[in-house]
Amino acid sequence: MDFIKQYDWAGLITNAGVLLIKLIIMILLYFIIRSLGMKIIKHLFAKFEEQNSLSIGRAHTLRSLTLNIFAYILIFIFFVMILDLFHYDPSALLAGAGIVGLAVGFGAQGLVSDIVTGFFILLEKQLDVGDYITVSTFDGIVEQVGLRTTQIRSFDGTLHYIPNRNITNVSNHSRGTMQALVDIKVPAERNIDEMIHILQQVCDETAAALPQIKEGPNVIGIQELGTSEIVIRVIAKTENMEQWRVERVLRKEIKTALDRAFPKETE
Amino acid sequence: MDFIKQYDWAGLITNAGVLLIKLIIMILLYFIIRSLGMKIIKHLFAKFEEQNSLSIGRAHTLRSLTLNIFAYILIFIFFVMILDLFHYDPSALLAGAGIVGLAVGFGAQGLVSDIVTGFFILLEKQLDVGDYITVSTFDGIVEQVGLRTTQIRSFDGTLHYIPNRNITNVSNHSRGTMQALVDIKVPAERNIDEMIHILQQVCDETAAALPQIKEGPNVIGIQELGTSEIVIRVIAKTENMEQWRVERVLRKEIKTALDRAFPKETE
Amino acid sequence: MDFIKQYDWAGLITNAGVLLIKLIIMILLYFIIRSLGMKIIKHLFAKFEEQNSLSIGRAHTLRSLTLNIFAYILIFIFFVMILDLFHYDPSALLAGAGIVGLAVGFGAQGLVSDIVTGFFILLEKQLDVGDYITVSTFDGIVEQVGLRTTQIRSFDGTLHYIPNRNITNVSNHSRGTMQALVDIKVPAERNIDEMIHILQQVCDETAAALPQIKEGPNVIGIQELGTSEIVIRVIAKTENMEQWRVERVLRKEIKTALDRAFPKETE
Amino acid sequence: MDFIKQYDWAGLITNAGVLLIKLIIMILLYFIIRSLGMKIIKHLFAKFEEQNSLSIGRAHTLRSLTLNIFAYILIFIFFVMILDLFHYDPSALLAGAGIVGLAVGFGAQGLVSDIVTGFFILLEKQLDVGDYITVSTFDGIVEQVGLRTTQIRSFDGTLHYIPNRNITNVSNHSRGTMQALVDIKVPAERNIDEMIHILQQVCDETAAALPQIKEGPNVIGIQELGTSEIVIRVIAKTENMEQWRVERVLRKEIKTALDRAFPKETE
Amino acid sequence: MDFIKQYDWAGLITNAGVLLIKLIIMILLYFIIRSLGMKIIKHLFAKFEEQNSLSIGRAHTLRSLTLNIFAYILIFIFFVMILDLFHYDPSALLAGAGIVGLAVGFGAQGLVSDIVTGFFILLEKQLDVGDYITVSTFDGIVEQVGLRTTQIRSFDGTLHYIPNRNITNVSNHSRGTMQALVDIKVPAERNIDEMIHILQQVCDETAAALPQIKEGPNVIGIQELGTSEIVIRVIAKTENMEQWRVERVLRKEIKTALDRAFPKETE
Amino acid sequence: MDFIKQYDWAGLITNAGVLLIKLIIMILLYFIIRSLGMKIIKHLFAKFEEQNSLSIGRAHTLRSLTLNIFAYILIFIFFVMILDLFHYDPSALLAGAGIVGLAVGFGAQGLVSDIVTGFFILLEKQLDVGDYITVSTFDGIVEQVGLRTTQIRSFDGTLHYIPNRNITNVSNHSRGTMQALVDIKVPAERNIDEMIHILQQVCDETAAALPQIKEGPNVIGIQELGTSEIVIRVIAKTENMEQWRVERVLRKEIKTALDRAFPKETE
Amino acid sequence: MDFIKQYDWAGLITNAGVLLIKLIIMILLYFIIRSLGMKIIKHLFAKFEEQNSLSIGRAHTLRSLTLNIFAYILIFIFFVMILDLFHYDPSALLAGAGIVGLAVGFGAQGLVSDIVTGFFILLEKQLDVGDYITVSTFDGIVEQVGLRTTQIRSFDGTLHYIPNRNITNVSNHSRGTMQALVDIKVPAERNIDEMIHILQQVCDETAAALPQIKEGPNVIGIQELGTSEIVIRVIAKTENMEQWRVERVLRKEIKTALDRAFPKETE
Repeated sequence: MDFIKQYDWAGLITNAGVLLIKLIIMILLYFIIRSLGMKIIKHLFAKFEEQNSLSIGRAHTLRSLTLNIFAYILIFIFFVMILDLFHYDPSALLAGAGIVGLAVGFGAQGLVSDIVTGFFILLEKQLDVGDYITVSTFDGIVEQVGLRTTQIRSFDGTLHYIPNRNITNVSNHSRGTMQALVDIKVPAERNIDEMIHILQQVCDETAAALPQIKEGPNVIGIQELGTSEIVIRVIAKTENMEQWRVERVLRKEIKTALDRAFPKETE
Repeated sequence: MDFIKQYDWAGLITNAGVLLIKLIIMILLYFIIRSLGMKIIKHLFAKFEEQNSLSIGRAHTLRSLTLNIFAYILIFIFFVMILDLFHYDPSALLAGAGIVGLAVGFGAQGLVSDIVTGFFILLEKQLDVGDYITVSTFDGIVEQVGLRTTQIRSFDGTLHYIPNRNITNVSNHSRGTMQALVDIKVPAERNIDEMIHILQQVCDETAAALPQIKEGPNVIGIQELGTSEIVIRVIAKTENMEQWRVERVLRKEIKTALDRAFPKETE
Repeated sequence: MDFIKQYDWAGLITNAGVLLIKLIIMILLYFIIRSLGMKIIKHLFAKFEEQNSLSIGRAHTLRSLTLNIFAYILIFIFFVMILDLFHYDPSALLAGAGIVGLAVGFGAQGLVSDIVTGFFILLEKQLDVGDYITVSTFDGIVEQVGLRTTQIRSFDGTLHYIPNRNITNVSNHSRGTMQALVDIKVPAERNIDEMIHILQQVCDETAAALPQIKEGPNVIGIQELGTSEIVIRVIAKTENMEQWRVERVLRKEIKTALDRAFPKETE
Repeated sequence: MDFIKQYDWAGLITNAGVLLIKLIIMILLYFIIRSLGMKIIKHLFAKFEEQNSLSIGRAHTLRSLTLNIFAYILIFIFFVMILDLFHYDPSALLAGAGIVGLAVGFGAQGLVSDIVTGFFILLEKQLDVGDYITVSTFDGIVEQVGLRTTQIRSFDGTLHYIPNRNITNVSNHSRGTMQALVDIKVPAERNIDEMIHILQQVCDETAAALPQIKEGPNVIGIQELGTSEIVIRVIAKTENMEQWRVERVLRKEIKTALDRAFPKETE
Repeated sequence: MDFIKQYDWAGLITNAGVLLIKLIIMILLYFIIRSLGMKIIKHLFAKFEEQNSLSIGRAHTLRSLTLNIFAYILIFIFFVMILDLFHYDPSALLAGAGIVGLAVGFGAQGLVSDIVTGFFILLEKQLDVGDYITVSTFDGIVEQVGLRTTQIRSFDGTLHYIPNRNITNVSNHSRGTMQALVDIKVPAERNIDEMIHILQQVCDETAAALPQIKEGPNVIGIQELGTSEIVIRVIAKTENMEQWRVERVLRKEIKTALDRAFPKETE
Repeated sequence: MDFIKQYDWAGLITNAGVLLIKLIIMILLYFIIRSLGMKIIKHLFAKFEEQNSLSIGRAHTLRSLTLNIFAYILIFIFFVMILDLFHYDPSALLAGAGIVGLAVGFGAQGLVSDIVTGFFILLEKQLDVGDYITVSTFDGIVEQVGLRTTQIRSFDGTLHYIPNRNITNVSNHSRGTMQALVDIKVPAERNIDEMIHILQQVCDETAAALPQIKEGPNVIGIQELGTSEIVIRVIAKTENMEQWRVERVLRKEIKTALDRAFPKETE
Repeated sequence: MDFIKQYDWAGLITNAGVLLIKLIIMILLYFIIRSLGMKIIKHLFAKFEEQNSLSIGRAHTLRSLTLNIFAYILIFIFFVMILDLFHYDPSALLAGAGIVGLAVGFGAQGLVSDIVTGFFILLEKQLDVGDYITVSTFDGIVEQVGLRTTQIRSFDGTLHYIPNRNITNVSNHSRGTMQALVDIKVPAERNIDEMIHILQQVCDETAAALPQIKEGPNVIGIQELGTSEIVIRVIAKTENMEQWRVERVLRKEIKTALDRAFPKETE
């Protein structure tokens, strides 16, 4: 506990002015370099995009990452210099209390996990800015990919900040054609063959009308056989992110077709 | 176990008076410096805000944080000086019992986790005082952001104290326009095209009446196709925190419009 | 395993009498000092409270904590002196079996966690004696705050002992005005504007009658739009701990008003 | 692996007879000392109880604990002497295989956790023999409190053995007056003021008849407002462990009173 | 990686014959000693049981445990001798690769946990062979108690092998009288006093007829007060393992009595 | 990072040809030895089975295990020799980076856990190839038992690969007679004695017809007493794996008997 | 913190140009070697497949793995050379801060787990590219198997990236014939023998019509005996991945047959 006494408290106060000036200069320098660096990186990526050498999603991913790395390295250097300014030797402080060291080691563990995981997410291109993904219980559009955190904007407008270490199983919904699936419940007393015929007709008409549909839609058969209701399943392949619209159109068309075919039932 | 004997118990008692006086002085000093420091920090931030160089939420966040850091450092110095006063060498006590040391190291681990996580939450601006956020199972308005704990006030008035280490996935609902979503259940025997036409008309009128709506509202289609009920979905983009009011107005307007269009049904 | 032989078993038995006397003296001393200390602390706090320098809840919190710390330190000193009496060197016993040491280190870890967490709960004033809080799955009134355990009395009379390490997310319901929320279900065939008018009238009358209401109550709109039922929400701000009474009064007044307005329905 | 060869196997066999006799003497001694010690402890506590210096629950708790500690210490000494008899140095065996040592250290960790937790449960008087408690998913009457395990007898006769380390959050239902709570469902068409009047009358009569009721019972108001049913809540304070009987009596009296007041409804 | 080269591969092959013979002798010896030892242990316990010095359950528990310990020690000695035969020094192999050592230490940790827990389960007599117990999600009759695993036979015939480390909270249903509990649902329009009278009469007759009932059965009152149904609870104390039969007889007798008392209702 | 420079890159390329030949020879050798060894082991076990010295399930278990151990040891030797070929000293690589070593140690921990657990599962004969078992959430027939993984084929044809470390609580359904349990729901207005008489008659007839039934079936009494339905339970002991068929036959026979006895009810 | 000062900052800037050129050359080299290597590997596997020495699934698995390993090794070498270029000794940086080292060790642990698990998944052929598998909560067709991550394409088009360490229990649905299971609910008043006869007839006809059925389908009996409904189960063995189609055909055929047999019921 002597490290408190060994300091020349009086001297500290007299030196405070000098220190303060140095501190202000450093803070100013930090903000100048930071804004300069940011501008340069953004400028470089803007040029990069013009040449179309990368997909837009990937380019945005790399830009947000580069800005992120730049900011973190700057913070780290700034932090070390501030400590240096005060003639404090943080390692001595830590070494003196091995207990604290152990605690810090464990505490920082999460941070390293974030960076290691983040590195592999990017290397393996598991997600790009603009992708629609599901991670644990969150789903939405990737807004920013950072060294430590990934930002996902869900459809209701909420912005989720997820530490990379929590991103283990990534479900990326923006990698290829999607499937539209509609389950139709019909009363059990209807004739099955007739029902399937009507539904398939609607499917064929819808396929002709919607260019977003890539395959099908087709009636694949009876999915569930209840005593009062039968569930018939219709499946189609659609362009990415168009699956919901196709499902809604299919539901409306099937509803209209069934109302036309069995008008009595609804009165 | 000899460290109990080696003390001059008699001397301790005679010195107790001197110690007590020193102790009282230190406690007084602690409270004086604390209240002084608090005032200065608050004063500085008040000036800061006048110049409008930061958003109000961010300024409040930084103020509560600065107060927090100041209080913790003061407590730490005070704690070390008290120990010093009693000529106790806590490190010897600890080193003598390596077991205790290990235990303390693990015990303090949570504290370090809190500070590391808290630091990054602030650095990445994941939340500001006044934001409406969801963290694990708690949601509410951020009231204070500290080095170790974040305080969230939920809408029913409860104040939640959440250690920063528990703040992993932050869902911030105050970052951009929000979506208002209303699901309308209508009887299956209604004509679909007519229904959609009426609903869209209500939407257009509401959009004209409410300036908080930024986009839509629009009927996006049939969401669910039951045998007795059909669910039609309406979506709008609104100003932040205005989504609930827009939803309530939409529900009321749609209800009134449907009652007008199908008056028989309700008798 | 020779430490069992190396003892002078005969001598131990002859010395047993002397030891027994010492032991009895120590136990007596322990109980005398304990009861004396307890009285002094209680006396000091009684004086403290008279001067009203602290809120009652905070004063009780500090009193129960001081008694707690005093008791633990006394137990620790007593425990060490007993060991000393028997000329046993517990550290040697432990060091001799490094395995046991490791186990003890891990075992004591929970205890340190309790104390560290307890310290910060108190420092940050997360809870005071008398507060109504929710911690994990327990809720009730804080009865005692200790260095290791916090006692919560739930409304059915059960006393919960919760180790401080389990108190991570504290939801304190005694920090500010609370919200009373009443959801009214009305049949879907009723006229919405009329309903809202009646409900708002009841709200205004209740607000006039109950001084515990600080703001509102107000009908905020339609919360849910079913095919046979509509849910209308009423919200008010009330004094702390008065929210349930306000909700019950509101429910009764609204029920009476609706019965008066639509007498037929109930027959 | 040479420690198997270095033994004089032949000598071991010739010495086996001597060892066997020693072993039998030790086992006999163990059982004699054990039963003697048990008797003495029980005798001492019987005297203790006569003098009424402790509550019965607390006395039983201390007795079961003292017997427990005595048995464990005896087992430990017996175990070490048996090992000593065979000239085996267990520490060498362990040290020779550091891997095994590590494993044992971790394995014994749970045992230490049990003892540390058990010590604090007793020190803080969280439970006594005879208390009705809930621990994790088990509830019942505490039958025995040990250094390592606590035994709880649930009402269906099952005896639960719970290691102390699993006893974290203790809910003790035997610390003070309990609350009896009865929710009465009444049809929505009834007049509210009349209903509350009848119920309060029953409450007052029951309070007069049952001396176990310490406060109330009182009708506190409408708890839930359904479209066909209304829930009215009645609350009372009762003597400990009498809450269920009071609830049952209240239910019967209320049922009888409502049948008398509205005789038509039940036909 | 030189430990592969330094072996005299040719010599190994020529020595293989000698080794093989040694190996076969050792395997034969292992099986002979094993079956001999097993027979002796079983014989000893058979004699032991004749003298009735222990309860049968406890004797079976100790027998299965002794066989278990004998088998494990034999396996361990056999394993070490096989390694010795091949002139392999396993510790060198392990020490050479500290990484492997660490892994093995952690891997064996579970095994040590099993043995430590198993030891205390037996010492504290938490379960005996033949007891009906519940452990985590398994319940059944204990069939065998081992040093590492406990076998439980559930009533549907499945045999569960549970590592002792997973046996934390033991619920033993074979320790004392059990409670039989029957809840009777009666229509809300019945007269309560009459119902209770009839039920108590059935209870008294059943108590006279069944000697397995030790106390009661008694009608303890109304457990639940619904608008259309009332639940009346009957409780009895029975001999161990007879609770289900008593419950079934009570249900049948009550059903018959109610059919006799209210014959109209069932047509 | 100098180990990259110190290599004679040119020499590496000229030596590549020699290395490649060596490598090919080794790979060929590996495949030859592997297929040879596999054949010999299978041949030995085929002979073994002819002599009927082991049950078929146990023999298959041992065969799949022996093949497994052989394959793993071969892979290990092959792996070490490949490394040796390239003059790489893996231990140096690892030792140079202690961090990597630590990580590998932790990573390999799971593998050791698998082998240790697998060893005890086999030693204690918890499962054999062909047994019907339940492990965590998977159930099916054991297809292969390996040193690291166990393969279970569920009844729908899926093959589950389960690492042995995940096999903690094993529920083996192939160890002894099983219980068939059928719950019959009958309307509450039926006469109980008559019902039980009819059911017991069906049970006796079924017992005579099905040789797979070893004991019973018997009507054990009323399991549940509802206001409109009564549940009567029938229990039988059957041969292993025949329980489902017995249950189905019992259900059919009871249904037919009840239809015959109460013909009106079904029209 | 002196490592920042000891650098010749001026020299660094002058050397920056040289470094930049080196850096660009290295990056170019990296991309050239990478694309070259990729092409060669793909070419080799294309030839490999022509010779049909491996199943297609296995060949794709090995190809994706080889590309993966190649890419990771290249990245590692590139990363080390970049560090070397800057004359940075990363190990010194790490060693200087033992705390960081510890953290990195723990952080990298997950990566090693991935590789170890991935290695065994491949060695034991638990899955191949093209297999239909279930892993934790994800199911779909395996698209790529990597050293660190496995990609699964679910049927709705989503691509799941799963770190190998999360692949513990693999359920592979592409290993052998599958079972089709259809449960038919029939009204309780039907004659059971007649129902089973009709269903078995449909099964036999379907078996004749569908070549994908390998065994059955057969009516195995009554699965559930309700008071108003009876559930009859039909089971068949089918070719892999054809089970759903067989189930759908069976449902349709059974529905048609029942409608023909009991025409009245549906009107």
